[in-house]
Amino acid sequence: MSKGRIFSGMRPTGKLHIGHLSVIENWVRLQEEYQCFFAPVDWHALTTGYEDTAGIKEDTREMVIDWLSAGLDPEKSTIFVQSHVKEHAELHLLLSMTTPLSWLERCPTYKEQLQQLGAGRDIRTYGFLGYPVLMAADILVYRADTVPVGEDQLPHLELAREIVRRFNHLYDSQVFPEPQPKLAKISMLPGIDKRKMSKSYDNDIAISSNAEELWEKVRLMITDPARVRKTDPGDPEVCVVHTYNKIYNDEEVEERIAQCRTAGIGCINCKRRLADKMIESLNPIWERRAQLENNPGIVEEILTAGADKARKQAAETLRVVREVMNIG
Amino acid sequence: MSKGRIFSGMRPTGKLHIGHLSVIENWVRLQEEYQCFFAPVDWHALTTGYEDTAGIKEDTREMVIDWLSAGLDPEKSTIFVQSHVKEHAELHLLLSMTTPLSWLERCPTYKEQLQQLGAGRDIRTYGFLGYPVLMAADILVYRADTVPVGEDQLPHLELAREIVRRFNHLYDSQVFPEPQPKLAKISMLPGIDKRKMSKSYDNDIAISSNAEELWEKVRLMITDPARVRKTDPGDPEVCVVHTYNKIYNDEEVEERIAQCRTAGIGCINCKRRLADKMIESLNPIWERRAQLENNPGIVEEILTAGADKARKQAAETLRVVREVMNIG
Ligand code: SF4
Ligand code: SF4
Repeated sequence: MSKGRIFSGMRPTGKLHIGHLSVIENWVRLQEEYQCFFAPVDWHALTTGYEDTAGIKEDTREMVIDWLSAGLDPEKSTIFVQSHVKEHAELHLLLSMTTPLSWLERCPTYKEQLQQLGAGRDIRTYGFLGYPVLMAADILVYRADTVPVGEDQLPHLELAREIVRRFNHLYDSQVFPEPQPKLAKISMLPGIDKRKMSKSYDNDIAISSNAEELWEKVRLMITDPARVRKTDPGDPEVCVVHTYNKIYNDEEVEERIAQCRTAGIGCINCKRRLADKMIESLNPIWERRAQLENNPGIVEEILTAGADKARKQAAETLRVVREVMNIG
Repeated sequence: MSKGRIFSGMRPTGKLHIGHLSVIENWVRLQEEYQCFFAPVDWHALTTGYEDTAGIKEDTREMVIDWLSAGLDPEKSTIFVQSHVKEHAELHLLLSMTTPLSWLERCPTYKEQLQQLGAGRDIRTYGFLGYPVLMAADILVYRADTVPVGEDQLPHLELAREIVRRFNHLYDSQVFPEPQPKLAKISMLPGIDKRKMSKSYDNDIAISSNAEELWEKVRLMITDPARVRKTDPGDPEVCVVHTYNKIYNDEEVEERIAQCRTAGIGCINCKRRLADKMIESLNPIWERRAQLENNPGIVEEILTAGADKARKQAAETLRVVREVMNIG
């Protein structure tokens, strides 16, 4: 039996934070079982960021370095930049012809995102409305049958499935499989101030921080505000450090809870031990990043080879699509 | 001074009727003065015809044979099929990101066309709404500065100009010229029943009709209904034959008016003389069509060479576009 096929994309946002790691670690696991296509979707970045594109290429590169550092393997997965494979644009155009406008207008995330992302920017564009069509093209151009998604992306994937059903029906074909969602358990790491981790809140920890930068962030983590003196007992349940301990310091977490509740450890000490565990865990990633950075041109080589591989698959899909649509 | 550059497209509708000849004759004149790109825009055909695409390739081929027969010269003009030059799709995607939705929604022809063309078909698609963006991409991918248009297409061209201004402003560039309309005097030939000439009314005369078929149509032309007997005087102003005489039989038109008004000629005779003149005028076109039909593969060769030439220009434009947008 042939392996299932996965496409997954991520908007290029530059250096990732450790909250993204669980997504990439999921990809790293998937690449053992599936034929995987992973792409920074830089054309998607234009839907909200067309007014300032100066950073897109550098953001793409840095994000890919994080992916590779975290274990994505170009020998196992096809890693490439969306805009390097023009077939995405051709399929997007063809699917735009068969996609009812109402499907996009009623898409639950459309109005939500208009408000969330639109602050101070004019994103009421034709391309922003068509974002789910482009996402469908990204998946379908590889005839991927499986898409790792978070809950919030399920409506978009359902739309892609509707687009598939309509296409296959209109052209009496089985060109595209209906891509199935693969929900992954993604641990949600809070920012150091307990809010959602985000670069824009400056409460994030970059995957690529060095040990010093990491300590600086951990040192600033919000702890139990009721624990004023070192002799006050604390409540780990309201402390960010504890949330991190559950992920980075699993074997000491019970001991730490007990120590905290009995004022048996100071917060600085507790944070230092977390930071050490995090450094231990991130070290292999940092080493791989250093290797990549010391090897100029390697990232470009990987992306060029990836685009060539992706293009071959995409071209074959388009050949069949053109045939059943009798065009091109 | 370099020649101006023209792009013009036509939806592939199969064999054209003689009402289209004045458009093509205008192109034939333009190809002497401009660097011209002429394309059957088959992707546009999908905006209204995506539900039945079986005939698109044959319709494209037949239309191109009519173009070539009527004097479009592949040595002078670049003649190619839109969907063979994928750069149109890439530029369409990029321009979709910068084009406000409201521009498309308020486009005066949008709602009109929804009603006119939508009868019995579901054309409320994302692609149909974006038709002017694709049209802009068609023009701009060749950085054409001039577009021959009819009055009815002026709103679309104005939209293309707005798209240019916004793009050049956003990316601080002069990549695209603002394409200027070139209004041509297009003689409007009525159908043989005096309504607008259209294949769907079955009142048209195909450019490629032979002499017999042409006579069959002329014979059925609506004349002055008040002229019941041959001895009744007629009124040429209400007669379709007279309208045709003004175009195909200019030197005899005064004589014919006088004869009609004095019952000096019968309608059948009058029609026969028109038909003879039309045959004389269409003969060179028929001869060229016969040559093309006797030379299998020649149309495909012309279109392949045209697409290669077009692609070179389009690729160069996209190179610059990607550079100023910092993407791809
Ligand atoms: S001891 Fe550790 S878990 Fe308890 S409040 Fe301080 S940092 Fe948080
Ligand atoms: S004589 Fe000629 S112009 Fe007069 S009504 Fe007959 S067909 Fe028409």
